[in-house]
Amino acid sequence: MKTIAVLLFPGVTVLDAIGPYQALAQLPDHGVRFVGERAGPVGDSHGLQLVADCSIHDIDAADVLLVPGGLAAITMSRTGHELIDWIGAVHRTTSITSSVCTGALMLGKAGILHGLPATTHWYCHAELADHGATPTDERVVDTGHVITAAGVSAGIDMALHIVERVAGERFASGVQLDMEYDPQPPRASGHPRCADPAITAWVRGLYDDALNDDAPAET
Amino acid sequence: MKTIAVLLFPGVTVLDAIGPYQALAQLPDHGVRFVGERAGPVGDSHGLQLVADCSIHDIDAADVLLVPGGLAAITMSRTGHELIDWIGAVHRTTSITSSVCTGALMLGKAGILHGLPATTHWYCHAELADHGATPTDERVVDTGHVITAAGVSAGIDMALHIVERVAGERFASGVQLDMEYDPQPPRASGHPRCADPAITAWVRGLYDDALNDDAPAET
Repeated sequence: MKTIAVLLFPGVTVLDAIGPYQALAQLPDHGVRFVGERAGPVGDSHGLQLVADCSIHDIDAADVLLVPGGLAAITMSRTGHELIDWIGAVHRTTSITSSVCTGALMLGKAGILHGLPATTHWYCHAELADHGATPTDERVVDTGHVITAAGVSAGIDMALHIVERVAGERFASGVQLDMEYDPQPPRASGHPRCADPAITAWVRGLYDDALNDDAPAET
Repeated sequence: MKTIAVLLFPGVTVLDAIGPYQALAQLPDHGVRFVGERAGPVGDSHGLQLVADCSIHDIDAADVLLVPGGLAAITMSRTGHELIDWIGAVHRTTSITSSVCTGALMLGKAGILHGLPATTHWYCHAELADHGATPTDERVVDTGHVITAAGVSAGIDMALHIVERVAGERFASGVQLDMEYDPQPPRASGHPRCADPAITAWVRGLYDDALNDDAPAET
């Protein structure tokens, strides 16, 4: 059995992890491990608890690594974190190291994106360059060893791409049918290129405020 | 605070719950409760454990009820189950009772869909009629009090619709932008109307086999 390691951390955007998991868990001959700083419940950004079945001290290799995002991922990528050291170490063992949303910034801080094209949530796109990556406005960027997806729901598109790479077109088509992934977004508001600029400015401001709340108080 | 109750049960298709949760959890003045037969960890269809923060004995009313699906939901809808009795009781208190995927069959067994148009995962569409519903080939069917979504990923489209109903178009557009829900499915394989018929037959056979494995051994 090959291992798919899905990282969890407090404040994770849970759909970043679960969208891809729903597809990746169906890969034949692969098993999924949810990995936390410690084994046990990990709270997402809105209070749901998911159970990490092992800790970063229990697992030092994986075939596929998936790093989800969230505001906490931005913060960790700016300050450094034990989880980022773990990502860098496990990356040396993987066939595919992947991120969803701001998980890309954790890959970046781990030194994994240097010299590569990459994507992340639209809010943080420019910040990829701080890690030596080339911000690329695509929903999924596959460089071979490293695959990055744009924000949150883009992880579903990425995972179907990974399933196709690993198990072929027929299998991936079956997984997509199982998930009835025939999306019909109610509006054209999923990216700043199509959203009302006033909505984009409003959401950007919410993120700015949330990150400032996390920052140490200035003295 | 209004309550959004998300039902969990062993074998749940986790994306049915988490796709909508990622949008619904952002509704102002609403809090999400994850409700299990008992409080504590509940395993999904592939081994992930989510924590139900309360049991069906702790909560008898909700403003929004969300019932996810899975093969286990099909089985419970055929045999009856304590959770279905609970759904029927809570439905009498809700503004919106909603289902994703085969969760619709649990609503059906609870008597909630009688006389209504409804949808579910493509595999079970015809079975809606057993509960007095009119199977309707739309991704989201909103009858006012009751809203049903098609399979798995359709819950995301449904949740954005619910967010718009509850909090308005501007707010829903912001949530969609937050989730970067600008889907780019890798293939046209998300519904039998577009999938290769051989793929559809293969996936249908997998479901048939899985349900037969769940059936009591014939004597």
